[in-house]
Amino acid sequence: MMNFMKMMRGQWSNSKFVCVGLDSDVKHIPRHLFKSFMGIEEEIIFFNRAIVDATKDIACAYKPNIAFYESHGEEALFALGETIEYIHENTDAPVILDAKRGDIGNTNEEYAQMAFGLLESDAITVHPYLGKEAMAPFLEYQDKGVFVLCRTSNRGAGEFQDMLIDGEPLYCHVARHVANDWNVNGNCGLVVGATYPEELRRVREIVGDLPILVPGIGAQGGEIKKTVSAARDIRGTGMIINSSRGIIFASKGEDFAEAARREAIKLHAEIISALG
Amino acid sequence: MMNFMKMMRGQWSNSKFVCVGLDSDVKHIPRHLFKSFMGIEEEIIFFNRAIVDATKDIACAYKPNIAFYESHGEEALFALGETIEYIHENTDAPVILDAKRGDIGNTNEEYAQMAFGLLESDAITVHPYLGKEAMAPFLEYQDKGVFVLCRTSNRGAGEFQDMLIDGEPLYCHVARHVANDWNVNGNCGLVVGATYPEELRRVREIVGDLPILVPGIGAQGGEIKKTVSAARDIRGTGMIINSSRGIIFASKGEDFAEAARREAIKLHAEIISALG
Repeated sequence: MMNFMKMMRGQWSNSKFVCVGLDSDVKHIPRHLFKSFMGIEEEIIFFNRAIVDATKDIACAYKPNIAFYESHGEEALFALGETIEYIHENTDAPVILDAKRGDIGNTNEEYAQMAFGLLESDAITVHPYLGKEAMAPFLEYQDKGVFVLCRTSNRGAGEFQDMLIDGEPLYCHVARHVANDWNVNGNCGLVVGATYPEELRRVREIVGDLPILVPGIGAQGGEIKKTVSAARDIRGTGMIINSSRGIIFASKGEDFAEAARREAIKLHAEIISALG
Repeated sequence: MMNFMKMMRGQWSNSKFVCVGLDSDVKHIPRHLFKSFMGIEEEIIFFNRAIVDATKDIACAYKPNIAFYESHGEEALFALGETIEYIHENTDAPVILDAKRGDIGNTNEEYAQMAFGLLESDAITVHPYLGKEAMAPFLEYQDKGVFVLCRTSNRGAGEFQDMLIDGEPLYCHVARHVANDWNVNGNCGLVVGATYPEELRRVREIVGDLPILVPGIGAQGGEIKKTVSAARDIRGTGMIINSSRGIIFASKGEDFAEAARREAIKLHAEIISALG
């Protein structure tokens, strides 16, 4: 089995930091390009394969958000499994399943089986709210990455995440607990939105060289220069910068895959430029 | 469309408080009782129907935890959909999808579509961490219930939930925000574990007559008398007391449905007795 953190270090050593978010909502994929006899599972698989083929020399990782598959039922979930298999067979990029799960221990065993066993993902995103004890079934997969939500990219993220505990916001406590206590197997990371560069910088100061997954670039408005400056570790690595809609839906025409490639290359170049 | 809160008030007025947790893990259901030609979807459907038939005059609600279906792939998810349809056609009990979801707004639209559109659940459980703004796609379904995780039943729940903000633990702030701000459509509830009766009492004091979903009875060790005393609102209603494994896996023999009925009746009687 491949080790997620080793895969990421390999990608970073090749200066790859762009994560392609495969939020391939069948409502928005250019279905008119596919043959009329196809079912939605085939449409999703064809679309995702075209995106992967067009970006595989650029992407450091792929991040499908499972919500966009679950909402379209069993066929779409089947297409997600096929997509992940295709990525494994055709690229060096790990798959981060963006599932934002979090339940009590015996239930998390089922979610871990879903993510790592059934779907063969290399990493998952999880909620911190139930604490480390409940998240053990994820953390025990030593070869899999576990990205804990820390400061999310949404406008109202601060409602609880900014609440002050001993003079420090909750999200900083989450970052510290994950770095100092949850990470015994060396497989933890944090999720911090690009829309909050100052908070991102603060998390980086707390967590040292832990990987930070950074959504919120592109459609959500995060700026790349500020993001890279705040997210990079002391060696200029440790960051996974995700763009979803900005890459995969860059064009809805016949050139959708070329447009996705163009946007991925553009983001890659901007990151490399920001790293200086 | 049926309104979840109206359905619950109808159940409470009939003194029904027992929620049957359909955590029907195909690894643990008595498969040997079913015919050898069945696929796992049929085994799950047969099992769930037998449990529903045996408990429908007792149960105030059914709560399938989707993790136990997702981990077994598309067939099990299909079986979940069939089970929910069966409950709607054969009982007065609403279905609370225990999914513990929580993402940014445009992604939550997909999860809400999955829970309320595709699966036709009447309510869902969600994480509070991203705040009200992100959860709007759930809250906007006025006829559906939204149960926000507040104080969870697991041993390590306090890691973040007990952190003090202005002298009060985080879970109390979550309870107050949900009661005073999230509940504009009158469709919110809280999730508080039976394993923490003092915390449960404190949440009840904060939220008035908001429904509280209480897991943690039975296999997890919560005591019924303390739970009822702490969870009831001033009229002796407002609580949904869940038992999963304690009911559905009460027996693995041919009497599994009768055993489930016996345990549901026992829990019901204990609750009524505790209400005095």
